[in-house]
Amino acid sequence: MSPAKTDAAAIPVAVEPNRDEHLVSAVESAGGRVVDLADARVLVWIGAVADFPDLDDDIEWVALKTAGIEEYVAADVIDDRRVWTNASGFYADNVAEHALGLLLAGLRQINTAVLRHWDKERIDTSVRSLHGSTVAIIGAGGIAASLIPRLSACGARSIAVNRSGRPVEGAALTVASDRTDEVWAQTDHVVLAAPATAATHHLIDAQSLAALPSHAWIVNVARGPLVDQVALIEALRTGEIAGAALDVTDPEPPAADDALWSLPNVIITPHVANPASGLTRAMAPWMAENLRRYRSGEDLLAVVRPGQDY
Amino acid sequence: MSPAKTDAAAIPVAVEPNRDEHLVSAVESAGGRVVDLADARVLVWIGAVADFPDLDDDIEWVALKTAGIEEYVAADVIDDRRVWTNASGFYADNVAEHALGLLLAGLRQINTAVLRHWDKERIDTSVRSLHGSTVAIIGAGGIAASLIPRLSACGARSIAVNRSGRPVEGAALTVASDRTDEVWAQTDHVVLAAPATAATHHLIDAQSLAALPSHAWIVNVARGPLVDQVALIEALRTGEIAGAALDVTDPEPPAADDALWSLPNVIITPHVANPASGLTRAMAPWMAENLRRYRSGEDLLAVVRPGQDY
Repeated sequence: MSPAKTDAAAIPVAVEPNRDEHLVSAVESAGGRVVDLADARVLVWIGAVADFPDLDDDIEWVALKTAGIEEYVAADVIDDRRVWTNASGFYADNVAEHALGLLLAGLRQINTAVLRHWDKERIDTSVRSLHGSTVAIIGAGGIAASLIPRLSACGARSIAVNRSGRPVEGAALTVASDRTDEVWAQTDHVVLAAPATAATHHLIDAQSLAALPSHAWIVNVARGPLVDQVALIEALRTGEIAGAALDVTDPEPPAADDALWSLPNVIITPHVANPASGLTRAMAPWMAENLRRYRSGEDLLAVVRPGQDY
Repeated sequence: MSPAKTDAAAIPVAVEPNRDEHLVSAVESAGGRVVDLADARVLVWIGAVADFPDLDDDIEWVALKTAGIEEYVAADVIDDRRVWTNASGFYADNVAEHALGLLLAGLRQINTAVLRHWDKERIDTSVRSLHGSTVAIIGAGGIAASLIPRLSACGARSIAVNRSGRPVEGAALTVASDRTDEVWAQTDHVVLAAPATAATHHLIDAQSLAALPSHAWIVNVARGPLVDQVALIEALRTGEIAGAALDVTDPEPPAADDALWSLPNVIITPHVANPASGLTRAMAPWMAENLRRYRSGEDLLAVVRPGQDY
């Protein structure tokens, strides 16, 4: 038997806590070599935050698999002795698609139809159209960039809310996040696509719910704590808004006796906008591209900035 | 009191069997005058086929409210002594939107999520993406023209099937309907948007179901008889295809004990792609445009050709 082929110029990359086949292929396709953590310069971490290893300074770059990194921030794992990337890039199409699916399911009353067989009188008068409506997207990052052209093709206009207020491509209007309150009365529906930070905590609360039109649907594909769930349930009960389609809740899952489960105008999917079961396969091409950039000294995608909690 | 204002040049239009407010406004906005049927040159008919009145030759144009006119053909109502239009135009955006909503609801497992609370293990592994997939649209008329750009924005490619095989704008491939059988193995999913004719009867049958990939979803926003429902139920039971999302069935509604209701991979909405409750409001701008064309001698939209059953 010949010894394993080695490539002195290949970047030594650890894929931990297990050598996932999709990521190993990606690393090797982009000029990397999979090694133990002790020998690595790059760590691809696909485990839980609680199991995150102590790192020595030889590790120059850590690639995390999650888009939201609030757990890593809370655990004080992220340091300034190396580069950290999250995975906000490759999720975008999948999450935008799920958001559109949730919004259309609510507007077209597909949830009601599944539960109430051929209740035509109720459903026919409740179906609403996305075309001709306005959708506010809170958090105008990668998900919004994927969602806006989808909404445009569906005949809906988008209001983008971002930190800077700098116009977002394809949005009819961009609003700076410190003026989010002005958005509620101008929109028909809301998609939450912002990171969970102190600034976005309970962004949807009694006040914003009161300001939204009564035909509004709220879609959350971001993080549960963006919504004051007690206020949401009250608004859904009283008809202050039309419905909520949630891929994330607070806590997850909701308790078995949570009122969310029994409200007819709620759709809950179990945090599957980006299915975990396909995650490493979906992440692989993105990982390969980032490793290629690393080798050639280009800027990495999705770098986490120190002190920034998203 | 002054007498009602009359306009000698206005086209006399009957709106029957009841003077719907939205259509009366549309007629008046486009230079028409609403009159009794005996005094009319145009009939806007929003009633049932069974109640359709005998017409004298003064009626030059009949505007029907339905997209599919098979009932009028079967009742031998449509003659060659005047122009007939159907309403295939203004439904398109609504029906295309419903088709996209049904397809996404199936792929993203929203139906399963509504019925099986936070069954993450099952749902996470079952969610599929529309982006990157191919959708065949059977019947490449107005609905397809609305649906294709929506699918493109979602990252899916379209195969259009039409009578002539003449390339449809935006479709990656157009196939003539006499070669439909070649489409099944080339597509991931199918949207039925063709009229109910002898040629489309049971277009989806045991043979086409066997040729489709096992991950395929079939969406029907056209007419129930396009699908051999016995064969469909068998294919859904055995996993020959992944699911069916039906806005139309055969018969409508399915019987209370129809197997369709109990299959976990079926979504049924009660023929609401174009909600009847909002029909005349949605039809009004289209009616106004067609009346404007009539007045100025331009070609009408959606003219029904004699001897053609759609």
